Amino acid sequence: MTATRAGEAALDTSALSAHPLDALLRPRSIAVVGASASPDKAGHAMMQALDGFAGDLFPVNPRGGTILGRTAVTGLGELPGPVDLAVLVVPPQAVPGAIEQAAEAGVRAAVVCAGGFAESGPAGHELQQRTIEAARQGGVRLLGPNTSGFMNPVDGVFANFMPAAAALRPGTVGVVAQSGGINLAIAFLLERAGIGLRLGVGLGNAVDVGFADMLEFFAGDDTTTAVGLHVEGVADGDALVAALRRVTARKPVVAFKVGRSDVGDFAKSHTGSLTGSYALTRAALAQAGAVVVDGLDEMVAALQALRSVRLPAAPRSATGVAVLTGQAGPGLVVADALGARGVRVPELAPATLDRLGELLPPLTYQRNPVDTGRPSDTFPDVLRLVAAEPGIDAVGVYALDEPGVLDPVTAVAGAAGRVLYATGGPADAVERHRVRLAEIGVPLYSGPGDLAIGLAALVSDAAARAVPDAPPVTATRTLGRDLDEDEAKSLFEAQGLRTMGRRAVADRAAAHDVLDELGGPDNPVVVKVLDAAVLHKSDVGGVHVGVRSHAELDAALDAIDKIDGTSGRRYLVEEQAPGGTELIVGGVRDAVFGPVVLLGLGGVGVELGGSGAEPVLRLAPLSAERAAEMVDALPAAVLDGFRGAPPVDRGALAATLIAVSDVLTAHRDITEIDLNPVRVTSRGPVVLDAVVVRTPEEENHVQHNA
Amino acid sequence: MTATRAGEAALDTSALSAHPLDALLRPRSIAVVGASASPDKAGHAMMQALDGFAGDLFPVNPRGGTILGRTAVTGLGELPGPVDLAVLVVPPQAVPGAIEQAAEAGVRAAVVCAGGFAESGPAGHELQQRTIEAARQGGVRLLGPNTSGFMNPVDGVFANFMPAAAALRPGTVGVVAQSGGINLAIAFLLERAGIGLRLGVGLGNAVDVGFADMLEFFAGDDTTTAVGLHVEGVADGDALVAALRRVTARKPVVAFKVGRSDVGDFAKSHTGSLTGSYALTRAALAQAGAVVVDGLDEMVAALQALRSVRLPAAPRSATGVAVLTGQAGPGLVVADALGARGVRVPELAPATLDRLGELLPPLTYQRNPVDTGRPSDTFPDVLRLVAAEPGIDAVGVYALDEPGVLDPVTAVAGAAGRVLYATGGPADAVERHRVRLAEIGVPLYSGPGDLAIGLAALVSDAAARAVPDAPPVTATRTLGRDLDEDEAKSLFEAQGLRTMGRRAVADRAAAHDVLDELGGPDNPVVVKVLDAAVLHKSDVGGVHVGVRSHAELDAALDAIDKIDGTSGRRYLVEEQAPGGTELIVGGVRDAVFGPVVLLGLGGVGVELGGSGAEPVLRLAPLSAERAAEMVDALPAAVLDGFRGAPPVDRGALAATLIAVSDVLTAHRDITEIDLNPVRVTSRGPVVLDAVVVRTPEEENHVQHNA
Repeated sequence: MTATRAGEAALDTSALSAHPLDALLRPRSIAVVGASASPDKAGHAMMQALDGFAGDLFPVNPRGGTILGRTAVTGLGELPGPVDLAVLVVPPQAVPGAIEQAAEAGVRAAVVCAGGFAESGPAGHELQQRTIEAARQGGVRLLGPNTSGFMNPVDGVFANFMPAAAALRPGTVGVVAQSGGINLAIAFLLERAGIGLRLGVGLGNAVDVGFADMLEFFAGDDTTTAVGLHVEGVADGDALVAALRRVTARKPVVAFKVGRSDVGDFAKSHTGSLTGSYALTRAALAQAGAVVVDGLDEMVAALQALRSVRLPAAPRSATGVAVLTGQAGPGLVVADALGARGVRVPELAPATLDRLGELLPPLTYQRNPVDTGRPSDTFPDVLRLVAAEPGIDAVGVYALDEPGVLDPVTAVAGAAGRVLYATGGPADAVERHRVRLAEIGVPLYSGPGDLAIGLAALVSDAAARAVPDAPPVTATRTLGRDLDEDEAKSLFEAQGLRTMGRRAVADRAAAHDVLDELGGPDNPVVVKVLDAAVLHKSDVGGVHVGVRSHAELDAALDAIDKIDGTSGRRYLVEEQAPGGTELIVGGVRDAVFGPVVLLGLGGVGVELGGSGAEPVLRLAPLSAERAAEMVDALPAAVLDGFRGAPPVDRGALAATLIAVSDVLTAHRDITEIDLNPVRVTSRGPVVLDAVVVRTPEEENHVQHNA
Repeated sequence: MTATRAGEAALDTSALSAHPLDALLRPRSIAVVGASASPDKAGHAMMQALDGFAGDLFPVNPRGGTILGRTAVTGLGELPGPVDLAVLVVPPQAVPGAIEQAAEAGVRAAVVCAGGFAESGPAGHELQQRTIEAARQGGVRLLGPNTSGFMNPVDGVFANFMPAAAALRPGTVGVVAQSGGINLAIAFLLERAGIGLRLGVGLGNAVDVGFADMLEFFAGDDTTTAVGLHVEGVADGDALVAALRRVTARKPVVAFKVGRSDVGDFAKSHTGSLTGSYALTRAALAQAGAVVVDGLDEMVAALQALRSVRLPAAPRSATGVAVLTGQAGPGLVVADALGARGVRVPELAPATLDRLGELLPPLTYQRNPVDTGRPSDTFPDVLRLVAAEPGIDAVGVYALDEPGVLDPVTAVAGAAGRVLYATGGPADAVERHRVRLAEIGVPLYSGPGDLAIGLAALVSDAAARAVPDAPPVTATRTLGRDLDEDEAKSLFEAQGLRTMGRRAVADRAAAHDVLDELGGPDNPVVVKVLDAAVLHKSDVGGVHVGVRSHAELDAALDAIDKIDGTSGRRYLVEEQAPGGTELIVGGVRDAVFGPVVLLGLGGVGVELGGSGAEPVLRLAPLSAERAAEMVDALPAAVLDGFRGAPPVDRGALAATLIAVSDVLTAHRDITEIDLNPVRVTSRGPVVLDAVVVRTPEEENHVQHNA
């Protein structure tokens, strides 16, 4: 802490730590390149933030001098020995050179704060490539560029522009934010909620240390009990998903993806990475075990629950939550918010209700929510009783802070580990209760809304681990050529899917023969153009339903013959299917996340994208359990049979999803599959149209390297 | 404050206040009936809460004694003179008698805390009626029963069970909560956000003072600048809407309706009122000028903005918001959340962009959001420039708290009145900034999520006032008899709506004649059962489309003849309409809110109820502007023509809505209208089916008194 520090004897390098990222995140010694004595400079703020660092701290400034009481060395070459971490607070142009010097000086990791790299255009992209190269050559791990750094309150390292962050309380929540600003914003929101931080990292452009590295770090860090993840865009979907799976198997992750609305342009400028599909990224995060939230406040409320409480893996339908409240109104708000989030608040068992009748005054509502009225001495017994019910996995308690009426710790001690608490009261009293409750592992919220978010997060975390996924597969086959509808249907028939009887014919006379064979006055047929080059047949007048007579068939064939395109076109004549709800089953090979299977509603529903009609997206290959979970995600109105339509045969629909998954993941050259519509009939789902889109492999290859 | 107080000379009644609710909410003198010296009793907590009351405070306890240093009188008859307010902390059975005694003693208002009234069953309902009667007879205004009371920090009156509430800071936000517990929960959430309370009231069962009274109070109260409203169920929709219109014309109201999920049973038990339709209540609140939010935290964030800043009335499409940020990541989160909430974040004008290029370093993103990078001295100029742009009505600023880099007050002083600010930093620093910024009318938030909520609330408040509504009308006519489809269509044709050519026929031969007249091989007709008693024709096989031949007509008529029902049934033969998107236009006379018009998507969309497919509900009568606003609320995909379907003729669709509104509001005996579907064709909307449901007037009358 004095000017003599920089002049001390060479460091004991044998004590340098062993974990690959320890030199970066838990350094024993730090050099700040660009350290400044001018209070308005970023290089000064960084020195202030690191001022309390317990290890060796070396300001580096070509002009030397004294910075916050420390004598600056004039270059990395002047360091008394190798240091773990160099924090570079220098202009972007100076970064590659600084990294080379750092490597020469034995530095093992660097934080690169400057912006002006890939996020800023071609020149910055080139500079970024040189930076990566310098780091690789020198064996230096990089955080950034374009980040404000990180905060590690547990180990006392605040390599960040905000000196005030050094006052953040240590704790067990890890944060991985794509943006350095968001990393700080989350840290202060956690602090405001009374939650300590284990380590918060802003990745910036993430040229080296990325999501996967940080998730692996937290997975193996015994201090961390829950992780918050902020995602703008994902460059390597496979790595993110694999790392998430590993960490969520051991501890909960709460993820927030930016991009609900169209902000892609700004995001690209910001991080130099593609924002990608919002819905797909969210689906992938959830499938990999994360609790996906809609904002930072929701993330903080979810982390507050999950850092202390984790329920056993179980589907949403098998997890029950009880609400116990001292005041009816807030209890109603909690139960309502839980219902809106799809959390089960089940009826209590008759024996429980009988016992509640003995514990509570007669005028209170004693089902679920359980309203105790003004809390009495029986409150802890009521909570223990409700928490002990087999159908109840977690209990949310709301009680206004009434000293002398209810002591929070006494109230909930008997159910710690499966209870979350919320109160209303003066800030100092709430903070006192928060600290005492934290000691017994009970989170305390400041209102009913956050309590509901916390409870819902417990249920989502349990559900995210309930469905096993199939292991990744490598596509070994190719189709080698484009398929028309008839061939595509045959491909899926070979997978066991049902279609209607059909004939592919090359001329009109043959079509009339098929009408006699398959159709007639009581058995209308569908007549379609058969041409692999025509993808949207309906849009060009290539689909004619309800054809019963030869006159109607001629009219349909006339219309098809008028479609622009190649000669030698053929026709498909097919039995018309019985009525039923129409679904879309599709597959796509996403540039970031690889094979994806989609299940959605046909017609206007899916294209409007309302909350009840959003397509269900899951990463392939699909396990049997995953396919079943996709089916269950359809709206109940569809599954049960909408307006007299037949109900969905869930097993057969799941098999349809698996067929698409298998075909997509097996063939390298398939980029898209559309079974649209799949009609839900009384005899199961029937594929009424099938399109397979190929990309010849050389193009496919180029696309993936783009 | 001493034991001698109760023995002072008779009060100077000439000083009692004048406003109808002043005796209740701003009393000069208070008696607490059921005051207790036992610290664990509610009657003690109430005395503690009122301990700092500056007027005369009289504990009333039949056993006398001293309570918190005050000598209790043994009954209301022993008071030295009339008092404004009696707070009744007595069991429910004792309430009617206590009110009678209070009236005799000259008490003008009472807070009734006990539960056990209408919310608890028939016996409680009877008790509630006796309570109402006693109050009416004695001329005593009532708050409650079943409430924890109110807090009035501005006038220093805390008639509430929570003594800690007496520390709430005074301010300008009024709160009307249906639940006493929610009133307290909101108050402490406001306190946590640094927002002062003007007056917070829990209505409880609201047998006298209700939503309308409290809204009128706040409308006329000069101290109040914004109002928060918590609604479980609404008993008198007209009164609520009328009062909301009056207050929102003068100051903003933020409303939260409980009941997204199915919690009706608990709600009924709680408040003794029907929860009513969630969607309709929200629509009514918004139409009456309120900003409708999804939870208490959102309410607090919205109030934080609206208590200081109100934009001129303007439709959502005409209000532009800019985001100015010192850190890219949080700015992106704010812009994304605004987009998801339908707030316009428009491009800035070229001249503004040019000037920004001079003020900001080249590597920053300078459109909207505007990213300043690490803030410099130009930050205030950048904000003034952006705020001055004609297309920008409000600016949201995000900047981490960096002392020495950016002073918040300096940063935003030039744009106060149209700027909201959010930061991240240590709690004490944020609180200091909050106080300083409040002095210049700039709200300060603790994170990007709340900032977006606040900005969206400004836009919603402006939009809620932008559409004038038609004045209420009294229905003067009756239909007098049920209408079949043919008659119902004629009714709407008389209002100028379009239908297809049709003939109502009484026998099969006539039907065949009509087929020759209207139909043929190229002109299919639709054949329907014509019977006012058959409401869901399709479900019973009463609708046959695509009938071209006499054989097909016979088959259709056969099917219709098989429908169970009365003899003498007739047929409707109608030209088949061209294809197009199908909409539902409906009307219903709601028991709480009166006539309501609905516009929704036909088919699966409306029944799934997804966010993009929720029906648009508005209270009738509809003004031309309101009808146009309803049409504009349809998804853009539908308005512009979905998948090649014709676009919507907005004027003609608005006229359809007004026709339904006019017919519904003019006829006392119409309870429901369904124009379903209304098909959007290239020649405008066509009514394909029309159903009018009547309730004979005597039944209608009974229903409304139920």
